[in-house]
Amino acid sequence: MTHWVLILSCPDRPGIVHAVAGLLAEHGGNITESQQFGDPLSGQFFMRVQVEAVATRAELADALTALAARFEMVWNLDVVGRPVRTLVMGSTAAHCLNDLAFRQRSEGLPIEIVAVVSNHTVLAELAEFYGIAFHHVPVTAATRAQAEARLLELVQELDVELVVLGRYMQILSDNLCRELAGRAINIHHSFLPSFKGARPYAQAHARGVKLIGATAHYVTAELDEGPIIEQDVERVDHTRHVEDLMRLGQDVERRALARAVRWHAEHRVLVDGHRTIVFR
Amino acid sequence: MTHWVLILSCPDRPGIVHAVAGLLAEHGGNITESQQFGDPLSGQFFMRVQVEAVATRAELADALTALAARFEMVWNLDVVGRPVRTLVMGSTAAHCLNDLAFRQRSEGLPIEIVAVVSNHTVLAELAEFYGIAFHHVPVTAATRAQAEARLLELVQELDVELVVLGRYMQILSDNLCRELAGRAINIHHSFLPSFKGARPYAQAHARGVKLIGATAHYVTAELDEGPIIEQDVERVDHTRHVEDLMRLGQDVERRALARAVRWHAEHRVLVDGHRTIVFR
Amino acid sequence: MTHWVLILSCPDRPGIVHAVAGLLAEHGGNITESQQFGDPLSGQFFMRVQVEAVATRAELADALTALAARFEMVWNLDVVGRPVRTLVMGSTAAHCLNDLAFRQRSEGLPIEIVAVVSNHTVLAELAEFYGIAFHHVPVTAATRAQAEARLLELVQELDVELVVLGRYMQILSDNLCRELAGRAINIHHSFLPSFKGARPYAQAHARGVKLIGATAHYVTAELDEGPIIEQDVERVDHTRHVEDLMRLGQDVERRALARAVRWHAEHRVLVDGHRTIVFR
Amino acid sequence: MTHWVLILSCPDRPGIVHAVAGLLAEHGGNITESQQFGDPLSGQFFMRVQVEAVATRAELADALTALAARFEMVWNLDVVGRPVRTLVMGSTAAHCLNDLAFRQRSEGLPIEIVAVVSNHTVLAELAEFYGIAFHHVPVTAATRAQAEARLLELVQELDVELVVLGRYMQILSDNLCRELAGRAINIHHSFLPSFKGARPYAQAHARGVKLIGATAHYVTAELDEGPIIEQDVERVDHTRHVEDLMRLGQDVERRALARAVRWHAEHRVLVDGHRTIVFR
Repeated sequence: MTHWVLILSCPDRPGIVHAVAGLLAEHGGNITESQQFGDPLSGQFFMRVQVEAVATRAELADALTALAARFEMVWNLDVVGRPVRTLVMGSTAAHCLNDLAFRQRSEGLPIEIVAVVSNHTVLAELAEFYGIAFHHVPVTAATRAQAEARLLELVQELDVELVVLGRYMQILSDNLCRELAGRAINIHHSFLPSFKGARPYAQAHARGVKLIGATAHYVTAELDEGPIIEQDVERVDHTRHVEDLMRLGQDVERRALARAVRWHAEHRVLVDGHRTIVFR
Repeated sequence: MTHWVLILSCPDRPGIVHAVAGLLAEHGGNITESQQFGDPLSGQFFMRVQVEAVATRAELADALTALAARFEMVWNLDVVGRPVRTLVMGSTAAHCLNDLAFRQRSEGLPIEIVAVVSNHTVLAELAEFYGIAFHHVPVTAATRAQAEARLLELVQELDVELVVLGRYMQILSDNLCRELAGRAINIHHSFLPSFKGARPYAQAHARGVKLIGATAHYVTAELDEGPIIEQDVERVDHTRHVEDLMRLGQDVERRALARAVRWHAEHRVLVDGHRTIVFR
Repeated sequence: MTHWVLILSCPDRPGIVHAVAGLLAEHGGNITESQQFGDPLSGQFFMRVQVEAVATRAELADALTALAARFEMVWNLDVVGRPVRTLVMGSTAAHCLNDLAFRQRSEGLPIEIVAVVSNHTVLAELAEFYGIAFHHVPVTAATRAQAEARLLELVQELDVELVVLGRYMQILSDNLCRELAGRAINIHHSFLPSFKGARPYAQAHARGVKLIGATAHYVTAELDEGPIIEQDVERVDHTRHVEDLMRLGQDVERRALARAVRWHAEHRVLVDGHRTIVFR
Repeated sequence: MTHWVLILSCPDRPGIVHAVAGLLAEHGGNITESQQFGDPLSGQFFMRVQVEAVATRAELADALTALAARFEMVWNLDVVGRPVRTLVMGSTAAHCLNDLAFRQRSEGLPIEIVAVVSNHTVLAELAEFYGIAFHHVPVTAATRAQAEARLLELVQELDVELVVLGRYMQILSDNLCRELAGRAINIHHSFLPSFKGARPYAQAHARGVKLIGATAHYVTAELDEGPIIEQDVERVDHTRHVEDLMRLGQDVERRALARAVRWHAEHRVLVDGHRTIVFR
């Protein structure tokens, strides 16, 4: 008996739930969790089902392929809880890597961090503590293309399914963004769309906001414009300097990032144009 | 075409979703929202479906009755958005009534407040402003039974579906609690199970808590022990006196109560033993 | 014995607290609350003191005037809890007026709403219920100047100290903004600086944010750029339509606005360039 | 020039602030932060001042001793930012130690963890990574007294100023609680006073609460009854099993604990009977 998670999307129309439930029933499946959403704006239907079944992947895949043809459906089938092969990119700040690696080890975050890539070396020690291979890939204006090629090489070699930009601080080329579309998550240190671009905490301080935030989103070629997966905020007041905001912000960043990574790794996030469906 | 909301529960077993989806498909239904939950502890399955269909209530009811027999199912069918006939009980504090009446008028809260019952008269003016009949039913130790009889009379006469205790400040008899089981919501002015019973804000102040809360729950014969529908909190600090906690608490109370009433009125709350399922 | 609240600001330098505390001690004052802040960026010092004293206003004012000369100090002295004369401007949405008027009556919000001004008539009934004079001042492109003149006339006639724009939906002229500088609070229905300008909830929906917010700020000639007093947020998800965001946003708006108005009326807000000091 | 932090308390009466400000002015001090609170119930006055001054500790101490005699004052003087020597006790769960050690290294938490004490060995590796001495002190019913003696020995030998119980899971003897009074912080995994004692997440699940919480408090001989420093909560729903609550709760625990430890280490927490003053 395997515990499967199935996600799918297709143009909305009557009968989809019945057809999916029927397919699963035919394979002796017992649905343990099910969520759906029809977006009236895009006309797309989205569904996530967890089902216990003795059927093999091949049997389910065959049936789903037939169903997909009928409903113009895109689908993905995985085993519940299978760790997603993840590569974390970082710079000098350790809080994102520290948080994700800790949660993988101690809190059942279903990822396996197979590599840390950084343009600095300060994260090497932490990676080693968690038994993760560390790759130092320096980046200068002259070597950016080369560095990105090395990253893609690692992604391929290591069968990386998810790239997490944990305060990587480098802007990716349009080409790399496209290569990683739908499988790269960035944590931006502001409550987007406020304070896009550089030094958001300094911007937030200058504007005198009373809450600071962080935004986890899929990477797209348009900077800080990708579909938002999760946001969170923290209250601040006039006594806080920019340095305080940066420190307090780290908490918000790692919280929002950890949730986004968990939901992605549990196949709870589906992209609907510029927006995300999150079946929590 | 009617927009229906169906809620149901039954012992959990494979095939329920398929059977329900099939029944709805046979009646030309288009599912617009669907949530389900199988409680591994109680072994019960719970489901809420919104469906657009041309079928009549009688047609759907016949089919559901047949299905219910097969699955030992309890179900309820209503029209989405139909205002639930509601009676609000209060004492002297106006914030709960003011909030619910305002939300009914201006924010689409799907209730119709058909009566306000109070053991004081201060809420009469507010009820009148909103065009709601006000019933002054004084309560003393000697007249409690009589007052409760009058309340039940009103519930029957006015076809009341939901009784809201908006800081009513009187303890109901076991008998009345049983009569109103599943259709009476109380707002308790603490984060239950902390500070049950009387003067919770004074208790909270004495204990030096850093957050105060409120709890909306179904009324049961056991005081402050009914299934919790919603809770919320607000941060406080050492500078707050008991009076401040009471004032700040009013905001939390009306927020938690308004959400609980909305979810109940939208048929999003199902009772699972001592706990609630809330399909938000 | 009077309970005074004193706020002051001046260039920061050693000895200010000692001098102020000395002045108050000389007048037999007992400090009950005191907060201060030195802004390292602007070099300004800010202080708020509540003090019980038998001294008259004239005595205290004389002493403060002398002190102010020595420290280049701006100061204001008021009686704790004195209701601030307030004019509320609104359009058709009632939630801001309803909330402020209710809190004035039942929750000790220290304002006295002396007039409601609106370019529509729907708020008249609510104003009447609370015994507040309602002024219908229609606005068209042609009559804007005339309408603003009428508003200023009311502000003068009624000794208005605070103007609250409770979703007024009209852009004020630069001239009017300057006239009301420091004594007009607007509630913007987004988490500024996100979604400035028109239709912020539609913008928020299109961007797929996971939290919506509201911002209470002082009105300045630059639209939605005034010093922020308070912000708050509420979690939303993919199932929410624009209409849901508007409804959920109303709760956030009234919460943030009520806090900002309370803090202003209690003389807890001091302006420090583009930012505010809030001595909560 | 040293940046000092002074905290004090004494019976409330007029003139304290003036006297303290005068003392600091006489020593050429420039006040950078100052907070005070007079508790009307206990009649005690509390104050925290940060002041830049060239005076030596001896000079300030002499003056404060004289002032203290006059006002029956208890006071403490420290250098701003001096790391507080801290001993962390844990069991098998690593999240508290991981969080505190990371914040010490990367986020300027002003503590120095000088030892980790545990009745298990799983935390040894993490302690080693952070260069902290690990002491394995097994505890059985028979050896409890011996284990506590060993702890007190370490506290003395290492000049420990603060003991943090980071999910230590052992009940301390009354005697040890008294020995560590005011310098031991425990994180309880519930929103106290809800769910005191054992297995709070199981209790919370059974009660069907909609928010789970954590409470950081000073250790006293009465179990889970010490003065509360900080509390926080996290929203949960019916889909969460006890294991989920435990995992989600770890986030709340480490957040509340980290804040409490920071405030304690920055001398922002003063005990007022069963309650705390937190000058944030």
